[in-house]
Amino acid sequence: MGERITATYRLRAPQAEARTLAEDICIEQTAESHRQLIAEERFEQGILGRVESLTRIAEGVHEARISYPQHITAFQLPQLLHVLYGNISLKTGIRLERLDLPASFTGRFPGPRHGIRGIRQKLGVHDRPLLAAALKPMGLTPGELASRARDLAAGDIDILKDDHGLADHEFCPFAERVQAVCEALRESGRNTLYLPSITDRVDLTAGRVDEALRMGAHGVLLSPMVTGLDMVRHLASRDESRPVIMAHPALTGAFFSSEDHGISHSLLLGTLMRLAGADMVIFPTHGGRFPFTRGQTREIVQALRSPLGDLDPAWPMPAGGIDVESVDGLLDDYGTDTIFLIGSSLYTRSPHLMDNASRFLSQVIRKG
Amino acid sequence: MGERITATYRLRAPQAEARTLAEDICIEQTAESHRQLIAEERFEQGILGRVESLTRIAEGVHEARISYPQHITAFQLPQLLHVLYGNISLKTGIRLERLDLPASFTGRFPGPRHGIRGIRQKLGVHDRPLLAAALKPMGLTPGELASRARDLAAGDIDILKDDHGLADHEFCPFAERVQAVCEALRESGRNTLYLPSITDRVDLTAGRVDEALRMGAHGVLLSPMVTGLDMVRHLASRDESRPVIMAHPALTGAFFSSEDHGISHSLLLGTLMRLAGADMVIFPTHGGRFPFTRGQTREIVQALRSPLGDLDPAWPMPAGGIDVESVDGLLDDYGTDTIFLIGSSLYTRSPHLMDNASRFLSQVIRKG
Repeated sequence: MGERITATYRLRAPQAEARTLAEDICIEQTAESHRQLIAEERFEQGILGRVESLTRIAEGVHEARISYPQHITAFQLPQLLHVLYGNISLKTGIRLERLDLPASFTGRFPGPRHGIRGIRQKLGVHDRPLLAAALKPMGLTPGELASRARDLAAGDIDILKDDHGLADHEFCPFAERVQAVCEALRESGRNTLYLPSITDRVDLTAGRVDEALRMGAHGVLLSPMVTGLDMVRHLASRDESRPVIMAHPALTGAFFSSEDHGISHSLLLGTLMRLAGADMVIFPTHGGRFPFTRGQTREIVQALRSPLGDLDPAWPMPAGGIDVESVDGLLDDYGTDTIFLIGSSLYTRSPHLMDNASRFLSQVIRKG
Repeated sequence: MGERITATYRLRAPQAEARTLAEDICIEQTAESHRQLIAEERFEQGILGRVESLTRIAEGVHEARISYPQHITAFQLPQLLHVLYGNISLKTGIRLERLDLPASFTGRFPGPRHGIRGIRQKLGVHDRPLLAAALKPMGLTPGELASRARDLAAGDIDILKDDHGLADHEFCPFAERVQAVCEALRESGRNTLYLPSITDRVDLTAGRVDEALRMGAHGVLLSPMVTGLDMVRHLASRDESRPVIMAHPALTGAFFSSEDHGISHSLLLGTLMRLAGADMVIFPTHGGRFPFTRGQTREIVQALRSPLGDLDPAWPMPAGGIDVESVDGLLDDYGTDTIFLIGSSLYTRSPHLMDNASRFLSQVIRKG
């Protein structure tokens, strides 16, 4: 029957109900049937979940470790999501916290194709965190965005990305935007990576990626929970093109706003994004304008960089309130293998965008 | 600049903060920039959200109606999700409740291609609710599922679907399963619609749909929040094939488990699924094994069947605990244009599956 994957769920349930709930999950997420219909051994051994442990962690709260035969996922991300949380998402008091995956499972997925090592090689930067900035805001023309790209490259930003809100708008069409920014970066002579945002129809997305790479972009920014997580896996798995993939957390907050239900920050933004093939994952830093705690961001970083089968580590990319002055205090928290994404504060610090960007770098180098 | 779409958010915030929060949303979801960077008229008029009204609805709770220029969605579902709830999903205390869409917006989307009228024509059933049953459980072979399909068709079930957990498994490959069930239904001589479940790689999904239609299936079951919502739009928009699309609610519960944050039941399972092109949408009934209230299911039904631009209505498909005996009490709640989905209780009522199915129908006809 092969190996099993193990999911840890946090159950809001007192002792008497926690065992029943855990056993219900084993069936609800697999055969979804009355017990009498699945009495045969083939179900018990090959289909159903199994409660491996049940531990009381607080008053009225238990942690259940439930294993599933890995082949019921068909080794595909959509079916993995079905098995882990499809139907029970519709209940309450069940939060998917962690996932233990055998190497025989992770080996079926691409993981980051560039990862920490690959991006450092591209940039020739080996001993400091990387700096990223956003081309924004929505509403500018391709020429205006290209002009900003030129200044940011001159200020030694390592990675430029589009704001995730830049789609294929009439007032700023995708192809014109990417073309203009790529030309500006070529003219700058700097070795700046550019990842345009692709928010488009599912049937056009892979073609857009190829179009961007042909124009000189190095990869793309995607929102996996908007496009479907498997889009990341698809783009990372194609051998004919090898985009750097940056994942945006749009929509993911709906999953972890409650401590009693949903999917944890670190599983969604860490384990699953990395398994699918994201090279770098944006998430809101603690101390920014989003309500993330230091404990939560630490768990995300761990899920991205700690061993996970044979998959390469991915870059944590804290954002959402980092500015030139505050980055200083975050260096120790995140460590060297981190990409700091600075948003509009880079534009507002002074009218001189290039100087602002340079100052961002010097802050990081000084501390390093 | 064109017309605007209007989103209603429920804000968990006292009077003093609610106005600021609503105004923050207008920027966070669009330009995502400091005010000073977007002082020009082109942002104010063409990009930013605008607070249309702010109403206190309870102690510490406000309702904000925020309009956005519709062209910033690029008339695409992924970007619509970005605009409505992308970044603010990462905050707390903001729940997206409703959406008002002008006909110039809905007209850019397919909506249900078959809808209530089209399915009734296919079946030749015009005066009663429809009955659906699931082929299950995961773990059976194609031959075993086909045998169940034969019995259910003989028992006058209108629509057969696969359990959503049936993927492309080694123990029950997709093509063999669909082939076997389609053959069994042809042999039965009944006019039963069959919608196999497609849970597969994003790059293979459209091909799987065509494969299923060629074998004789009438459409497919998909989980839109697992595959990405735009997959539904894509499948509904292709002119070369016209699958009936049944949407499964897997994973959606993470969005509406909290009354303080996320996306409401009726917007996600009603408005968005219908806009994308689902002909029928499964959701847990009140009084079943999932914690849905009558008020919530009523809102879902309303979003599926009430006027929405020129889009056709879609079928509500209550499930999750309907059995032969209890369907009786649900007929008045849901009305005639409803598909009742009965799960494993159809198999357990007696060993005679065909009789159980016939009894299900007679219960519905007797009452009607």
